[in-house]
Amino acid sequence: MKLDNIRLVLMETSHPGNIGGCARAMKNMSLERLYLVNPLYFPDPDADARAVGAIDVLERAVVCASLQEAVQDCAVVVGTSARHNRRIGNLVLDPKACAERIALESEAAQVALVFGREHSGLSNEELGLCNYLLTIPCNEAFSSLNLAAALQVVCYELFMQTRRTDTDSQATPQGELATGHEMDLFYQHMEQALVDVEFIKAKNPRKTMRRLRRLYNRAQLEKMELAILRGIFNAMQKLADRGR
Amino acid sequence: MKLDNIRLVLMETSHPGNIGGCARAMKNMSLERLYLVNPLYFPDPDADARAVGAIDVLERAVVCASLQEAVQDCAVVVGTSARHNRRIGNLVLDPKACAERIALESEAAQVALVFGREHSGLSNEELGLCNYLLTIPCNEAFSSLNLAAALQVVCYELFMQTRRTDTDSQATPQGELATGHEMDLFYQHMEQALVDVEFIKAKNPRKTMRRLRRLYNRAQLEKMELAILRGIFNAMQKLADRGR
Repeated sequence: MKLDNIRLVLMETSHPGNIGGCARAMKNMSLERLYLVNPLYFPDPDADARAVGAIDVLERAVVCASLQEAVQDCAVVVGTSARHNRRIGNLVLDPKACAERIALESEAAQVALVFGREHSGLSNEELGLCNYLLTIPCNEAFSSLNLAAALQVVCYELFMQTRRTDTDSQATPQGELATGHEMDLFYQHMEQALVDVEFIKAKNPRKTMRRLRRLYNRAQLEKMELAILRGIFNAMQKLADRGR
Repeated sequence: MKLDNIRLVLMETSHPGNIGGCARAMKNMSLERLYLVNPLYFPDPDADARAVGAIDVLERAVVCASLQEAVQDCAVVVGTSARHNRRIGNLVLDPKACAERIALESEAAQVALVFGREHSGLSNEELGLCNYLLTIPCNEAFSSLNLAAALQVVCYELFMQTRRTDTDSQATPQGELATGHEMDLFYQHMEQALVDVEFIKAKNPRKTMRRLRRLYNRAQLEKMELAILRGIFNAMQKLADRGR
């Protein structure tokens, strides 16, 4: 996946605020190549305001007179489309499937993702220039996403795809986990402390201990957390000693 | 996955247009329960304008005075957070992992997804109320997503999850989870018991309590487990009383 080879094309956008929102959404996801086909107002202060820190994306935006011009050097063109356009017959992808599919293609070739007009989408002629259609699954009773919101979802999936191919760690870095042996000692200590404070009887600790084991096993204690809890057991035992 | 049991909570939103954008993004993805904690302007014509066909979501929005109030009946609270807050230490999920994790939980319990203020996010105290953190992976050099755009991505993954879960549900059935309010009382009780047994000083319990909160939030206490732990706190306090 080469995000640099992917351009986002907006068709005849009528609200300049949406152009700014799209620029911000793109840059958030490391996509910076914006093409504008006949924008109604551009440049425009509303676009700048919504772009916030992505003004540079607006400044480098390429303004074109037609979709054909915007995608002429592209090997793959993906058109976003509302669900009902399915009948056009192109292959319809959801955003994740689209990201997966263009991951390889973008390595060596230019790829365009095209977003239609706010109210009327893409014309049949424009859809005819597209190799695939991209549809964002949604509530069928209320399926019109805001342009910048739709573009945000698509760019998010592209960015997620770059992380998938990196074979990298999606696990969260946390403190070092306690070992099995440390957990054994922990449970022994806990049981003795609970006997000492007379919460459980030495004779029959089974059920309570089983529930507590389940809880702390599930939590996967870090060494540091285990140390705090054992500190608490020590404090309980010191107090119990004093009471004797 | 029961989308009806999932609420979206916006903290002290300063731009009413964002509230409208969020309402639209929610309804696009079949989520309709919006909670607003101290919105700066609401209701507001800018919110209505950006909501387009989701005015009904705004009309039914619940306005609260605090995050605590907004999530008091929730068993699971997820806080959205920028990447750098990782050091707080809660379990950090990306939007897809979050959707997978709350798919089952939302079947039987109330779940809240909390979005922080446009500029300052969530406070540490508010993050302390959260069981998980949700972070949207993005360009680290430009990581501030627009509020409605971030919410769109999260709602999109929730909606996608409804399409996935139709077949599978292999996770372990567990007991009923403690609510946010029960967890509040639990932490108050814990803190007092730890002061009583002289494990922490009443003056400065911060760091230890933060670590313990993190542990028990991660574990997602069941009501039964919470009852056992409070029983232990009672035993500790009885012993401390006796020692005086």
